[in-house]
Amino acid sequence: MDEKKVFLVVGGDMRQIYAAKKLSEEFTVYAAGFDCCTANAENVIFIGHLLEMPQKADYILYPLPVSENGIFVNAPFCENKILLTDTLSLLKDDGIIFGGKIDPSTMKIFNKSKAETVDYFTIEDFNLMNAVPTAEGAIQIAMRERASVLYKSKILITGYGRISKVLVKILSAMGAEVTVTARKYTDLQWAEIAGCKAVYLSEFENIVHESDIIFNTIPAMILDKNIINKIKKEALIIDLASKPGGVDFEYAKKTGIKTIHALALPGKIAPVTAGEIIACTALNILQRKEDF
Amino acid sequence: MDEKKVFLVVGGDMRQIYAAKKLSEEFTVYAAGFDCCTANAENVIFIGHLLEMPQKADYILYPLPVSENGIFVNAPFCENKILLTDTLSLLKDDGIIFGGKIDPSTMKIFNKSKAETVDYFTIEDFNLMNAVPTAEGAIQIAMRERASVLYKSKILITGYGRISKVLVKILSAMGAEVTVTARKYTDLQWAEIAGCKAVYLSEFENIVHESDIIFNTIPAMILDKNIINKIKKEALIIDLASKPGGVDFEYAKKTGIKTIHALALPGKIAPVTAGEIIACTALNILQRKEDF
Amino acid sequence: MDEKKVFLVVGGDMRQIYAAKKLSEEFTVYAAGFDCCTANAENVIFIGHLLEMPQKADYILYPLPVSENGIFVNAPFCENKILLTDTLSLLKDDGIIFGGKIDPSTMKIFNKSKAETVDYFTIEDFNLMNAVPTAEGAIQIAMRERASVLYKSKILITGYGRISKVLVKILSAMGAEVTVTARKYTDLQWAEIAGCKAVYLSEFENIVHESDIIFNTIPAMILDKNIINKIKKEALIIDLASKPGGVDFEYAKKTGIKTIHALALPGKIAPVTAGEIIACTALNILQRKEDF
Amino acid sequence: MDEKKVFLVVGGDMRQIYAAKKLSEEFTVYAAGFDCCTANAENVIFIGHLLEMPQKADYILYPLPVSENGIFVNAPFCENKILLTDTLSLLKDDGIIFGGKIDPSTMKIFNKSKAETVDYFTIEDFNLMNAVPTAEGAIQIAMRERASVLYKSKILITGYGRISKVLVKILSAMGAEVTVTARKYTDLQWAEIAGCKAVYLSEFENIVHESDIIFNTIPAMILDKNIINKIKKEALIIDLASKPGGVDFEYAKKTGIKTIHALALPGKIAPVTAGEIIACTALNILQRKEDF
Repeated sequence: MDEKKVFLVVGGDMRQIYAAKKLSEEFTVYAAGFDCCTANAENVIFIGHLLEMPQKADYILYPLPVSENGIFVNAPFCENKILLTDTLSLLKDDGIIFGGKIDPSTMKIFNKSKAETVDYFTIEDFNLMNAVPTAEGAIQIAMRERASVLYKSKILITGYGRISKVLVKILSAMGAEVTVTARKYTDLQWAEIAGCKAVYLSEFENIVHESDIIFNTIPAMILDKNIINKIKKEALIIDLASKPGGVDFEYAKKTGIKTIHALALPGKIAPVTAGEIIACTALNILQRKEDF
Repeated sequence: MDEKKVFLVVGGDMRQIYAAKKLSEEFTVYAAGFDCCTANAENVIFIGHLLEMPQKADYILYPLPVSENGIFVNAPFCENKILLTDTLSLLKDDGIIFGGKIDPSTMKIFNKSKAETVDYFTIEDFNLMNAVPTAEGAIQIAMRERASVLYKSKILITGYGRISKVLVKILSAMGAEVTVTARKYTDLQWAEIAGCKAVYLSEFENIVHESDIIFNTIPAMILDKNIINKIKKEALIIDLASKPGGVDFEYAKKTGIKTIHALALPGKIAPVTAGEIIACTALNILQRKEDF
Repeated sequence: MDEKKVFLVVGGDMRQIYAAKKLSEEFTVYAAGFDCCTANAENVIFIGHLLEMPQKADYILYPLPVSENGIFVNAPFCENKILLTDTLSLLKDDGIIFGGKIDPSTMKIFNKSKAETVDYFTIEDFNLMNAVPTAEGAIQIAMRERASVLYKSKILITGYGRISKVLVKILSAMGAEVTVTARKYTDLQWAEIAGCKAVYLSEFENIVHESDIIFNTIPAMILDKNIINKIKKEALIIDLASKPGGVDFEYAKKTGIKTIHALALPGKIAPVTAGEIIACTALNILQRKEDF
Repeated sequence: MDEKKVFLVVGGDMRQIYAAKKLSEEFTVYAAGFDCCTANAENVIFIGHLLEMPQKADYILYPLPVSENGIFVNAPFCENKILLTDTLSLLKDDGIIFGGKIDPSTMKIFNKSKAETVDYFTIEDFNLMNAVPTAEGAIQIAMRERASVLYKSKILITGYGRISKVLVKILSAMGAEVTVTARKYTDLQWAEIAGCKAVYLSEFENIVHESDIIFNTIPAMILDKNIINKIKKEALIIDLASKPGGVDFEYAKKTGIKTIHALALPGKIAPVTAGEIIACTALNILQRKEDF
């Protein structure tokens, strides 16, 4: 690793502060956009205004999402607005921009700078690391919302991607009876090797009535009216798929089945971890650049 | 099992209602003491007053605890007071009384009746079954109170009884780094077989500074001033030992370490399960009487 | 599924017989090439000569490998040679040929027929299903060859593909201390989630001296002279990568380190399972053809 | 620990040599009775004859079993007979004798010496530590004897003591479908928490026909004629209970069901581990004497 290159961390919530703290283990880190925040992070240099920045940064870390309008940085802990273009002027020409969920208008602005842009939200490392806090968060919700233990409860998980795999590992150890439904035969095989029952997506409607809890991870209308009609009234549906999710929420509400669309869990239930994941993703990218 | 013997379930909170529901799978069940409660439990016959009981009961199920004063049944869902002696007059002479945590003055009253008395709180079955909701509740608290995931967190568990064993199974699957400390060599061996590190109780003070979360299950002053001085300020202590617990709470508070004395978790986090466990304990006892 | 279509199973060892048995649950199955074999498989019709076949087959299942010379079927249980072309003449024009590891000269012959050809050895289903018997076989070898338990032994696994994942699951539950080394960060992440230590392939030479057992799954010269020099003399190397493997066997022998190149484990240690996997792969392919 | 007290290790097979090696980490160790053995164990001083012993020993370690006749030490690696009384004359008056499975006539001789006698075979530590090699050995046998994988095989385990618990942990991770049968409700509860099905011993005859493999750990005639009649012909029975075991072996043989009475597995499949366990048991005992 380079000797103390400079990172500017700008905007965002607690996650950005934890990201800054993590980055400060290897970089000189300045943090801007946190004047309403009392958090302290040893070794991070908090600056009240961008003008206080004594040198240009090698890298800038923007929050997730970077901006809500393509003009100002998303900075909930800051009373004053921070212009995206102002921050970019603090970056060296050969610098790197790290941002999460970069929208097209923000991307246009980034593209005008000479720096390279990385959307960490699209990086496999980032998404895999977030599978753990997402799964833990989903389990915490399931525990909180139910008046029974997870032990011996009947749980259906749709899809067998990253989050599902972590869910399966934990829930199986808790003694839940987990069934995975997915399209691909190899996914079903892996789910069985992991200790679950496995059912083709084309057939899960035949077993959905047994479920006490359903975790949806498929970003498509999986739990539609037809399926919801077959679900127990006391069941709990936790949708982990990004908007618009995979549940007919309106209809579920009508039938009295409790549904929760659990989005952005890492930031909500484990902001320290969520921030460290953002930092690690950036660190991995920088390390790979060096290695090759 | 006998054909439809009669159970009278009297007093208590939601757990008693779920116990009644479970018992109604095999018995005719009357429930008294729930007039302020809107819960419905198919097949359970709710009676507004003991006088409405059309026949004598073979068994009575009292709540946990049975009474707070040895005179009235503990019945938070009932506006009118229910005399213990009134309930006993509804029990057949060869009946059985099931009560939880029966205090001496209540026991005196029970002993005056000809019926046999069983304190289910002292039954091994009951305590083992409750290890699961206790462990799940403890994990839920740990998740809720921390801003990091349990994955890779360093967890210390004192003692290796029922609750610890369930905690270890779940936390290991979650990827936490679990260390168990106990007095007996065989307990440490079992903890290692379960995948933990294991440390003699006489030596755990040397490793306690590494812990992010400490679950205490030993009903003795284990986490005293000396130990607390060695614990990280950001650590979380969850004491699962019954009152007075095993933590110097006052001193921990002074040092700013967060402590939670988590008591009676099954009833709080999983009342359905807690009620069913009470019912199952009674059912097991009745079944054994039949078998032998 | 079709009503009793006809399968001809020809040649091969015990695996083919178990495959025939499995297929006979859904098809009329004829088996040729087993005259020196006393195995019985209810519902399978053994024929002594191809001429005894009373009807054309919808499907033919050849063994793994199909042929050693592109002329005769690989048929170790049969005294007489069976010509590939003779068998093909028993297949319907719209039939399907299933063969394993089809060599180019055999493929030429198959291509002359109008039937479709499937090499099940290249199908993902087949390879995933075989990960389980391969891992179990590898563990059996490790147990047999060592005078210590696997519990608490230090195990290194190179690569994190199918077989490694199954190995990790079992060995971790056995209490072994498993380290995975691989190239990709996400593989290392998954290995950690599975409960292992994880080390970049570029760095594993620094920890290889600790290993009691090394399972190699990477088909490249991973355990070369340099690495072997760092391995304990009492260590055991089990190479699971297909020929030529990933170990400098000559050099390991010189240094006195025990190495085993464990090839084709499913057929050797679990022929029933290996045969059923071949049948299941064919069944899956037929089922998918129907579905779409 | 004392500074270099003296241990005399006498007689026995490879296990004794590994025990001596382990003890030599903390003691000065002399080993007698190994003249036909080429094993080398650094730091252990092999003596050809007891007379070569230059000083009296603080402790003597005898093998498992100590003697077959109460006169000579059990010493299969030694051509000359070694008198028990000769060895005792080399022990200090306040010494400690460690022996395994001490028979009454040997015990009489030990009792004549002033030294304290410990039968490590009766120590809980010893038996628990041996559960691991016993379970691994049992699984190795099951793998070797069967032509199918353990994955998804249906396994019945009778009893839920030490060995069963280790078996359950490993077999469940291997994806076997494990059922435990035992007498006590709490044992069944623990088995369920460990992820198994659980059936009362009084009812297991109703499910025994499903089993592919049966591990018996109960030292009583559990698998009698009646039960054997219900077991599949292709099933494998592995009896781990000490002689006479829990299987009607004669009858099983008649019916063609394969049975294996697997005794003394640790010494057979993992002599290094078995020897270290003997040493550890002695070390634990010495450590406790010091502590209190």
